[in-house]
Amino acid sequence: MSFTLPNSGFHLPFNQGKKIADLFAPDADLEHALKFEKSLAIAQGKLGLIPEEHAATIIRHLASFKPDIPALETGIKNDGLYVPALIKHIRTELPEGVRGSFHKDTTSQDVIDTSLMLRMKTAVEWIAQDCVEVLSGLQQLKDEIGNRELSARTRMQAALPFTLADRIEGWQEPIKSLYGDKPDYFPLQLGGPIGMMHKREPQWKDLVRLLAEDLELAPIARPWHTDRQPLVNLCSWMVALSTALGKMGQDITLMVQNGIDELGLKGGGSSSAMPHKNNPVLAETLVAIAQYNAGQMGLVHTAALHEQERSGISWTLEFMTIPQIVLACAGSVQIARKLITQLR
Amino acid sequence: MSFTLPNSGFHLPFNQGKKIADLFAPDADLEHALKFEKSLAIAQGKLGLIPEEHAATIIRHLASFKPDIPALETGIKNDGLYVPALIKHIRTELPEGVRGSFHKDTTSQDVIDTSLMLRMKTAVEWIAQDCVEVLSGLQQLKDEIGNRELSARTRMQAALPFTLADRIEGWQEPIKSLYGDKPDYFPLQLGGPIGMMHKREPQWKDLVRLLAEDLELAPIARPWHTDRQPLVNLCSWMVALSTALGKMGQDITLMVQNGIDELGLKGGGSSSAMPHKNNPVLAETLVAIAQYNAGQMGLVHTAALHEQERSGISWTLEFMTIPQIVLACAGSVQIARKLITQLR
Amino acid sequence: MSFTLPNSGFHLPFNQGKKIADLFAPDADLEHALKFEKSLAIAQGKLGLIPEEHAATIIRHLASFKPDIPALETGIKNDGLYVPALIKHIRTELPEGVRGSFHKDTTSQDVIDTSLMLRMKTAVEWIAQDCVEVLSGLQQLKDEIGNRELSARTRMQAALPFTLADRIEGWQEPIKSLYGDKPDYFPLQLGGPIGMMHKREPQWKDLVRLLAEDLELAPIARPWHTDRQPLVNLCSWMVALSTALGKMGQDITLMVQNGIDELGLKGGGSSSAMPHKNNPVLAETLVAIAQYNAGQMGLVHTAALHEQERSGISWTLEFMTIPQIVLACAGSVQIARKLITQLR
Amino acid sequence: MSFTLPNSGFHLPFNQGKKIADLFAPDADLEHALKFEKSLAIAQGKLGLIPEEHAATIIRHLASFKPDIPALETGIKNDGLYVPALIKHIRTELPEGVRGSFHKDTTSQDVIDTSLMLRMKTAVEWIAQDCVEVLSGLQQLKDEIGNRELSARTRMQAALPFTLADRIEGWQEPIKSLYGDKPDYFPLQLGGPIGMMHKREPQWKDLVRLLAEDLELAPIARPWHTDRQPLVNLCSWMVALSTALGKMGQDITLMVQNGIDELGLKGGGSSSAMPHKNNPVLAETLVAIAQYNAGQMGLVHTAALHEQERSGISWTLEFMTIPQIVLACAGSVQIARKLITQLR
Repeated sequence: MSFTLPNSGFHLPFNQGKKIADLFAPDADLEHALKFEKSLAIAQGKLGLIPEEHAATIIRHLASFKPDIPALETGIKNDGLYVPALIKHIRTELPEGVRGSFHKDTTSQDVIDTSLMLRMKTAVEWIAQDCVEVLSGLQQLKDEIGNRELSARTRMQAALPFTLADRIEGWQEPIKSLYGDKPDYFPLQLGGPIGMMHKREPQWKDLVRLLAEDLELAPIARPWHTDRQPLVNLCSWMVALSTALGKMGQDITLMVQNGIDELGLKGGGSSSAMPHKNNPVLAETLVAIAQYNAGQMGLVHTAALHEQERSGISWTLEFMTIPQIVLACAGSVQIARKLITQLR
Repeated sequence: MSFTLPNSGFHLPFNQGKKIADLFAPDADLEHALKFEKSLAIAQGKLGLIPEEHAATIIRHLASFKPDIPALETGIKNDGLYVPALIKHIRTELPEGVRGSFHKDTTSQDVIDTSLMLRMKTAVEWIAQDCVEVLSGLQQLKDEIGNRELSARTRMQAALPFTLADRIEGWQEPIKSLYGDKPDYFPLQLGGPIGMMHKREPQWKDLVRLLAEDLELAPIARPWHTDRQPLVNLCSWMVALSTALGKMGQDITLMVQNGIDELGLKGGGSSSAMPHKNNPVLAETLVAIAQYNAGQMGLVHTAALHEQERSGISWTLEFMTIPQIVLACAGSVQIARKLITQLR
Repeated sequence: MSFTLPNSGFHLPFNQGKKIADLFAPDADLEHALKFEKSLAIAQGKLGLIPEEHAATIIRHLASFKPDIPALETGIKNDGLYVPALIKHIRTELPEGVRGSFHKDTTSQDVIDTSLMLRMKTAVEWIAQDCVEVLSGLQQLKDEIGNRELSARTRMQAALPFTLADRIEGWQEPIKSLYGDKPDYFPLQLGGPIGMMHKREPQWKDLVRLLAEDLELAPIARPWHTDRQPLVNLCSWMVALSTALGKMGQDITLMVQNGIDELGLKGGGSSSAMPHKNNPVLAETLVAIAQYNAGQMGLVHTAALHEQERSGISWTLEFMTIPQIVLACAGSVQIARKLITQLR
Repeated sequence: MSFTLPNSGFHLPFNQGKKIADLFAPDADLEHALKFEKSLAIAQGKLGLIPEEHAATIIRHLASFKPDIPALETGIKNDGLYVPALIKHIRTELPEGVRGSFHKDTTSQDVIDTSLMLRMKTAVEWIAQDCVEVLSGLQQLKDEIGNRELSARTRMQAALPFTLADRIEGWQEPIKSLYGDKPDYFPLQLGGPIGMMHKREPQWKDLVRLLAEDLELAPIARPWHTDRQPLVNLCSWMVALSTALGKMGQDITLMVQNGIDELGLKGGGSSSAMPHKNNPVLAETLVAIAQYNAGQMGLVHTAALHEQERSGISWTLEFMTIPQIVLACAGSVQIARKLITQLR
């Protein structure tokens, strides 16, 4: 998954999430792709699938290799992926006898899916860390002003009295629960050209074990080239988190309405025409992201249907939606952190 | 969730799923709603929250109660839900002193969410049973003709030789895996008017325990009136299953193409104009259902954002999408069973 | 498009739209399908494409023909469509020599698409009539209480003073504009087995002209078996109308909030637990329908991609989404009418 | 709409559409925003709404003004929009007495919506030009090899013989038809803080006329701050075009299948593992874009529901989806052009 993402951010939330945007930029994709190739060479060397000295040469070469991004972009235009051009480039730089030992028995999808999973793992870690901040911000808010009385509202109408703490708990609990269920299954990919390496390569299990250890990814029982449930699950979690934060955002937009004034907002957005305005911009953005991610999730499910042994159609649709979900989710957590500090 | 669904089926797949359609018809909704009220009266009686003899009266009355569907439909038109009219109706039939003990401290959402969860549990059981049939059908197919050689195809082009068994395994594994992960969390709902019963009613935990035991649902740590993740997860599983079957359907449409002929189909659909046609109707339907369910899933995520303590908007959107997902999923499993028997 | 729809309604809005639900029930589909066959026989008789006396026999037979719904349902299960079974059934009842003159040179898609378009035309007429009522209701409301002062709100915050009339105009104008642009292109379908009748049948243009006149549908320049833009446009209009009404609904939910009280609501929904509640159920339903229809519209665009000369996949997806959009849209207009009468 | 888009492209299709990506980059947004402010000053000067010499000063200043992008990014983080910071910045540079004459009576949404419409107009022009190329490419293909015989396929099964020309016409006609219906309504936006300028400013119609002439946009009968149908219609057209091209792409993926070989492909994508592969990468991308844009269109309809007088939520959702649709559509037309040259 590569070359798919904005360098310069997307919108407010994503500017605040530059670190995570960089994780989905071409450089980071390539860096993690080469990490896969390195681990593969090590493992294949250890298992005698390629000569150990070939492995050493490959590893040495990768250590100093600099990808030629414009050349890879041309590759993408032709092949739909950067991997074929990348492999070809690296092979031409290797000693002739070693070339066949590089990227041996593997395929673009192994590289790209593994690179993606490595970065999804980092993304989940970062997002989860930010959740901790959101939760502690909410706890502090609850401790400070939670005993304020307000009216619970059902179907947008005043229902019965309760406290601000009660409502804040309604924001905390789903986030806590998602934090507690944060994904911990980040499988590597290793299937070879048609996803059959597990049936063709007698040492496949050992290869998987070595790669998984080296890359700190989950080992797999079989390749998941066409079974995208691991990706669907990661996205579902991120979308659920955006929803949980969107609920908080929606409630805040309603609570800060003039005339309701259940919460105050310091430092909301200003207007170019009405100096008195104090717009709940961050709260609104949380709702917009929740809606956005819900819609993208429909497409992730659409993309999960891969025909035959590899679907270029579905894979391309993943490229167009998954990084956006991650960025939107990461943005929403950062926005939530900031928003909480504006409440009073 | 109520009065939301077709009695007569929806389309081909759903006619084959009449049993499951009935599960989402008004009668079944009401039956499970009354089950909740009965369990509640029993539990509240046991815990002394209502007089035991009131509980007995309520239970006796419910045993012979017949809902007045047209009256409830009028109720829905006014209240958006059948529960207020139902409760009112039952109360008028109870002795005056007992009326306040019926539906005590609870709310429409407790009734409706619990009724839905009871039926989702049944739906998952039935669907999972059908998965077993699909898996054994696939195993039989694999045993019979799995050694047939064919070409693996990636990006819709011939890649490398493999066997039909290899491809069939690519259908079996995701279904097996989803079968293994089949949902087992079906929580009851019990929150009262504003979802705060867990903080207001000292015996809430005991109530939850008794109700959960009686209804064979999962107990809860807090009400989930506005945290719809339990429903989202159930739907995600069903959509994933439709996708897994849709992949099989898509592959079959490609395999039975004239000129490819990797599989034959006996008893495909006929054409009104071309007697020689043998259309892979069931396989196509599997793909259509997968696309449909993916789209509905986007809406389920949208609906998962409930503002404040109860969102009539989001809840209504759930009513409009969740039963359809269940029916579509159940239909796809039944269609898959039949389709497998047509392959040769 | 057939056998796709709830008999008993769907939810509140659709119960109120029973007339329109009936339009998408099996009976109505078949009635309009037979209308197509009758017009076709007349036209083919006139043009000498079938003997005039065959045409007369067919028309006479159709006048008293009663479809055997259970048999057609079996047909649907096999063929994915009711047409093959229907044609076969009718042919067996015709004198042997006449059989080949019935449904001559045409195909299931001609029947089904034309039946749908006939009903879409009626649906648009009914919906447009209801729009007139909504608009006059809004005008009356504006005349009565439009001079009430309120605060315009942007980004959910008080902006500048204006009047209720100003806001009501913001509801009227998009509805007026959509009413003014109401669809008037309802093309018949006539393409034959592979959609090439326009290139194969020298009298195709005359056939189209005669059929269009008789059925009061638009003539076509070529079959649209795989170019679904006419259907997409009809759905887009309905979804836009739901959105316009959803905006009114959303505004009303905000205006009737306790504490805002910019509008009162008489006869809102009651609660099973809180007798003081007056829930803006109809307004909420308008928002839910708008969200629902927006999501279905994504699927209508997905379904618009028909591969090759006829896509069973895409067509099935149309069956699963288009009638729902119509019903939801029709429901929203009727709900809006009623809601306006509740405002004060 | 601002700062919302990738500088560096998105994926294969979008790298090929760099020109159009630039149109949605911050620089171009600002350039068109300032164009609006300039036209506004001219018109307000002419009508005496601001002193003519103020207008002259403003215009002179804008001619040399260079936006401070990082400062605007900070503005976006606070205000959700770049306009408040931009206006403030420009005002500080203007002579004190002139400041109030700049951006007078207008609002961020007037600036941003107009800037967007100016660029949508350019985008439609470019896309339409590329459609001409696609159509002529298809015509050439048809002239060259259209008489090749093949089998029409319905429901993915061989139906009846026809020619390649017949199928190519099925690609041409929808594109031609969309080209013929290409949008020509690009309205300016002018409503002021709460979208009521048409009722508050006696010279509003003259202002609109002058601005529309100067900006070569359509004049408006009332502001469309909350009636987003003009944007929905533009997006619908683009999505329909992606679908038309996606159909061609889908057909080509099916036609170039090994074993079907109805078309050859020179220069398809290569594989990192299987040197014999010739993948229909561009055709697959067309299908993926069609699916992507269908999904985004659901969100555009969701975003079209703007509550009250301006919805920050819905507007933000527009920012997150509309530019992506334009880029995806523009990319699909360019990909289609290239793909046609690969066919033989």
